[in-house]
Amino acid sequence: MTHFDQELAALKEKLLAMASLAEAAVNKAIKALVDRDDDLARGVKEEDGALDKFEIEVDEMAILLLSKAPLASDLRLITVAMKISHDLERVGDEATTIARRSIELSQEPQLKPYVDIPRMARMALEMLDDALDAFINRDPEKARAVVPRDKEVDVLNKQLHRELSSYMVERPATISRCLNLMVISKSLERIADHATNVAEEVVYLYEAKDIRHTGKGAEKPGQNA
Amino acid sequence: MTHFDQELAALKEKLLAMASLAEAAVNKAIKALVDRDDDLARGVKEEDGALDKFEIEVDEMAILLLSKAPLASDLRLITVAMKISHDLERVGDEATTIARRSIELSQEPQLKPYVDIPRMARMALEMLDDALDAFINRDPEKARAVVPRDKEVDVLNKQLHRELSSYMVERPATISRCLNLMVISKSLERIADHATNVAEEVVYLYEAKDIRHTGKGAEKPGQNA
Repeated sequence: MTHFDQELAALKEKLLAMASLAEAAVNKAIKALVDRDDDLARGVKEEDGALDKFEIEVDEMAILLLSKAPLASDLRLITVAMKISHDLERVGDEATTIARRSIELSQEPQLKPYVDIPRMARMALEMLDDALDAFINRDPEKARAVVPRDKEVDVLNKQLHRELSSYMVERPATISRCLNLMVISKSLERIADHATNVAEEVVYLYEAKDIRHTGKGAEKPGQNA
Repeated sequence: MTHFDQELAALKEKLLAMASLAEAAVNKAIKALVDRDDDLARGVKEEDGALDKFEIEVDEMAILLLSKAPLASDLRLITVAMKISHDLERVGDEATTIARRSIELSQEPQLKPYVDIPRMARMALEMLDDALDAFINRDPEKARAVVPRDKEVDVLNKQLHRELSSYMVERPATISRCLNLMVISKSLERIADHATNVAEEVVYLYEAKDIRHTGKGAEKPGQNA
């Protein structure tokens, strides 16, 4: 292994560590919501700074590596690593949003048992896991399989949004709780969008074929419902 | 001017053309909302593909330039250009969201005259303009001055959100309209976040000092209210 290859491996290691932290933040935020645990929620908010720091470090490593990259394919890999790091930092932001809304929700009686929200969280995090796995293992097929799963999370988000809308009309006293749950559901949908971004970048990287902004009809990652 | 410098200038030109398109999309979406003009709103949705294409082209140009960049400062500039292009593509996505919600809103009577929303749009677009100007003219001071203006847009978004929340409680018949307006307001707040991202990148680029994730206390770009 050349020195350059070692540095590239270190960059990938760093991204994986960042991904673990981002996924842990989402899991904690959802647990804080379900268990109505404000301390846990506050912990998520405080730990977000670590992800911000990671993003800056990945950028620094990447810039340094770009100046030494011998091949066009390495340049591409390094720029994709920077994009993935940005997506992971955003996943952390969404975890903070979920945590913040969970604290607001725990100040009122619980509206109903949470079923769809933990399910959406699991789906989104599995997508992210698979996309990162595809990045590390140079597996564009695995990455490609992530993309259509975004639609399932979109469907759940829209369904929950509709349910909550009718709830608000029937029982105006629940409006603030419904709004908080809508924001949380939307955050999870955005996490799935970030996973999709990562997957699309990985396909592009290993197949030199850009599938961003295609194949999803009118629906795009990052598009509001 | 060397051939490399010419190519760098072409990359900047491309970004400026992309920015014009993104800003025009936001302006059209807001005009569609205010004038209740569904045709104009549909136009915004259709034109979004052009921004997606721009992002892919910027990435291709950037990868090519990275392989020829003689200096670390050029590498940095090129990666910042890629990030700006991503932010502009997202601004286009927000314009599409605004257009889509405007079409829904024009199917019911107008809730009230729109004052704050066009104002937020103007503020966000001016921030974006200034941040891009700072990028082109190597002006980190101008970029730095953009960052605190994000807070003003956040305040307007939160204020509108509160107003709309109480409106919903008082008049449940307006709930779906209020929800649409909340999404539009949030989209504008996100456009200001993207402008802030661009500004922070420009400061980092020309002062080699990373101001992302600092100086805004608990508030961060991309953070939900």
